Amino acid sequence: MSDPSSSSSSNAAESIAKAAREAFEQSQLVDVSERDLALKAIREVLEGKKDEVLAANKEDMETAEALLAQGKLSKSLVSRLDLSRSGKFQAMLQGITDVASLPVPTGQVTFAKELGPGLDLHRVTCPVGVLLVIFEARPEVVVNIAALAIKSGNAAILKGGKESLRTSTILSSLIAEALSKTSIPPTFIQSVSTRSEISSLLAQDKYIDLVMPRGGNELVKSIQNNTRIPVMGHADGICAVYVDETAVEEKALRVVVESKTDYMAACNSAETLLIHESLLSTLWPKLASTLISNNVHLRCDALTLSSLKDLAEASSEFISESTEEDYHTEFLGPILAVKTVKSVSEAIKHINSHSSHHTDSIITENEESMSSWCRGLDSANCFINASTRFADGTRYGLGTEVGISTGKTHARGPVGLDGLVIYKYMMRSKNTSGSTIADYEKGDNRYTHEDLERGKPPF
Amino acid sequence: MSDPSSSSSSNAAESIAKAAREAFEQSQLVDVSERDLALKAIREVLEGKKDEVLAANKEDMETAEALLAQGKLSKSLVSRLDLSRSGKFQAMLQGITDVASLPVPTGQVTFAKELGPGLDLHRVTCPVGVLLVIFEARPEVVVNIAALAIKSGNAAILKGGKESLRTSTILSSLIAEALSKTSIPPTFIQSVSTRSEISSLLAQDKYIDLVMPRGGNELVKSIQNNTRIPVMGHADGICAVYVDETAVEEKALRVVVESKTDYMAACNSAETLLIHESLLSTLWPKLASTLISNNVHLRCDALTLSSLKDLAEASSEFISESTEEDYHTEFLGPILAVKTVKSVSEAIKHINSHSSHHTDSIITENEESMSSWCRGLDSANCFINASTRFADGTRYGLGTEVGISTGKTHARGPVGLDGLVIYKYMMRSKNTSGSTIADYEKGDNRYTHEDLERGKPPF
Repeated sequence: MSDPSSSSSSNAAESIAKAAREAFEQSQLVDVSERDLALKAIREVLEGKKDEVLAANKEDMETAEALLAQGKLSKSLVSRLDLSRSGKFQAMLQGITDVASLPVPTGQVTFAKELGPGLDLHRVTCPVGVLLVIFEARPEVVVNIAALAIKSGNAAILKGGKESLRTSTILSSLIAEALSKTSIPPTFIQSVSTRSEISSLLAQDKYIDLVMPRGGNELVKSIQNNTRIPVMGHADGICAVYVDETAVEEKALRVVVESKTDYMAACNSAETLLIHESLLSTLWPKLASTLISNNVHLRCDALTLSSLKDLAEASSEFISESTEEDYHTEFLGPILAVKTVKSVSEAIKHINSHSSHHTDSIITENEESMSSWCRGLDSANCFINASTRFADGTRYGLGTEVGISTGKTHARGPVGLDGLVIYKYMMRSKNTSGSTIADYEKGDNRYTHEDLERGKPPF
Repeated sequence: MSDPSSSSSSNAAESIAKAAREAFEQSQLVDVSERDLALKAIREVLEGKKDEVLAANKEDMETAEALLAQGKLSKSLVSRLDLSRSGKFQAMLQGITDVASLPVPTGQVTFAKELGPGLDLHRVTCPVGVLLVIFEARPEVVVNIAALAIKSGNAAILKGGKESLRTSTILSSLIAEALSKTSIPPTFIQSVSTRSEISSLLAQDKYIDLVMPRGGNELVKSIQNNTRIPVMGHADGICAVYVDETAVEEKALRVVVESKTDYMAACNSAETLLIHESLLSTLWPKLASTLISNNVHLRCDALTLSSLKDLAEASSEFISESTEEDYHTEFLGPILAVKTVKSVSEAIKHINSHSSHHTDSIITENEESMSSWCRGLDSANCFINASTRFADGTRYGLGTEVGISTGKTHARGPVGLDGLVIYKYMMRSKNTSGSTIADYEKGDNRYTHEDLERGKPPF
């Protein structure tokens, strides 16, 4: 506490968080339709200042390319940073319009009862409040998250990757400029740029309601360790496909190959393959051969390994023995851990104790196996004869995706705008003397608890 | 880590947490109807062993009464500990039957879409997993929480107040004895008895999904500071009543008096009273007089204080000047902090920055004030002309109450069995070749995202 810089960073964090909270509270009385007007204003300002944004992005790119040349940044990161690539700026703007066209997730009545004569209770969805969102070095995410926050009525404090700092900074200031012409306060969306600001913000549980770290297990855990604020995290994606005894060959081949090879850096790609022991000498060698022809390296347990003897001579570099660690690993590349199991329940047990509870698919024709899978598997997405790559907000028809939650409270799996709301109870007495519990518990009235039509919220 | 006792407590905690997780996973394949049979079995065993339970309770009571005599425990705590009071044991047993008769919160379809031809997605409610519940020294709560956990399909680890240790221990072992005769594993409900076990359990985020501390702000904060596991906390209840310009006198008097005096130790009792400035010389003195006649001490700001000049002479011991601290205080007794405000928006601003976002009531006839109140107030329960004491799961018709959440994610306000569930997505391909995203994104099929009838879950 005696370090003046840390104390000033903590004061700055408190001011930012407090301003966000005030902006949130102020915005609650603003009509919901103003949110779409604010999104429109942001789109217009960004469209008009495209050159300035791209100039800032060019500076970020130059710094990044120098670091790439020194081997300090990856090529894929630098490529994700580039906002000048054909269509990318336009897609960012279109994203704002797309979010504006989604249904408003707040103001929905999810429960309505007459508690007793003259006393109506409604449970109405509302924004969570103030979000702190920490994300990777993709500058367009600033705009995307700002749009989602505004549409759902949540104020947000954003922190992007340091490599995109100049681009993020100008995007944020243009968003504030646009908001200043609308009914939404300009401090509704704010940005911070340093890690020390994040750690100070994590102490502001008085003002911040939810932290959303997008960026893997280590980031999520370190944030959970350092805050009292609830965390909606997107941690690892260790997904499995299990090929059951009754699997149809074509289904197994198509689903396994796509789950593994379609986009290997995605969290919903498969990292583990479980094979029923009855298939070791039949389906398994064909599947292995197909995977190898797709350049996938197989790390096999003893039984799946020995079943590939013939294949191993021709493709020895693609086949090796697995370690226990392999079954806990998110490879994000052309490696697949393979294991033999004796039954669907052994497969479920393996996945429950090794996976990240994200997405797992079974290949089977057996209804009982399907039922065990969907009920016994403690995963957000339990699939049958379908690629793990379907686990995605857009593919689910949620309209957009805030992230994929690997947590088990509030929101799980692909999270749409609905994951950014909570609810409040609104109760109104229409009785001429108001309502006390004594009226219903000791007086003439009694609780009826009759369901009311949900319809529109009372206010 | 070199302290052998701490390492053994941490090993013990891991074993307990792992056993709970395994019991949870095992139970997922058990038919839902078995949960009610388990509840019935627990009731029967407890009924048969009533004498043993009361004997253990008598020992707890003797220890507690000795501590009471030494001034180390409060009378109310000792009274809450007593399970032999008339009707209390029977009420505990009836509670099990009541929970059994509630609707099952799991297996509800909350979203169902055909993603495209032959590919159906259902979002189905399911238990959160393993709960760690920390509660006060009321032994019957062990039975109540066990019943709620079983009904909702969650395994639970329970820690009650140390004063009820002997009673809790025998209740827990009888619950395990009853479960061992059913399809629900006996380790589905476990108890721990020491604080050091709790701190070791808070590190078991691999096995435990949700911590529910019931016992005030300090306990909740200390747990949030020491775990990565999500916390559903029941912290302070700093509730306010605001008497608006257009308030009807009778409504104001009835609602304010009940909100403050009905049960002062309750979290949904009022601690703050806000008075519109136009009422200072009219309604306010009458209200003050009524409160004083109910033995309520008023801590007033300058304006409400000077408006009570006439009254103050007769009742000086009930009227004093407030401090800023009073507006942040949960008195839980016959004290009320009073403040003048100029408008509904000033009232909202005061409450948003001083209250615990629990329950606040406005007395008004003005529709615009009502709307501002329900929208602008960042509280779980926003009431109009009704007593704050209505904020309760049973009064809301939720069937039971797991607790009142003062958090803003997952569940907010009075929490019923619904607050103990989350959901998973179940997806099934009915296509003859299974389903890949390529089929819908590059092939002949397209996403349709048509809503399906919700009905029963597929499995």
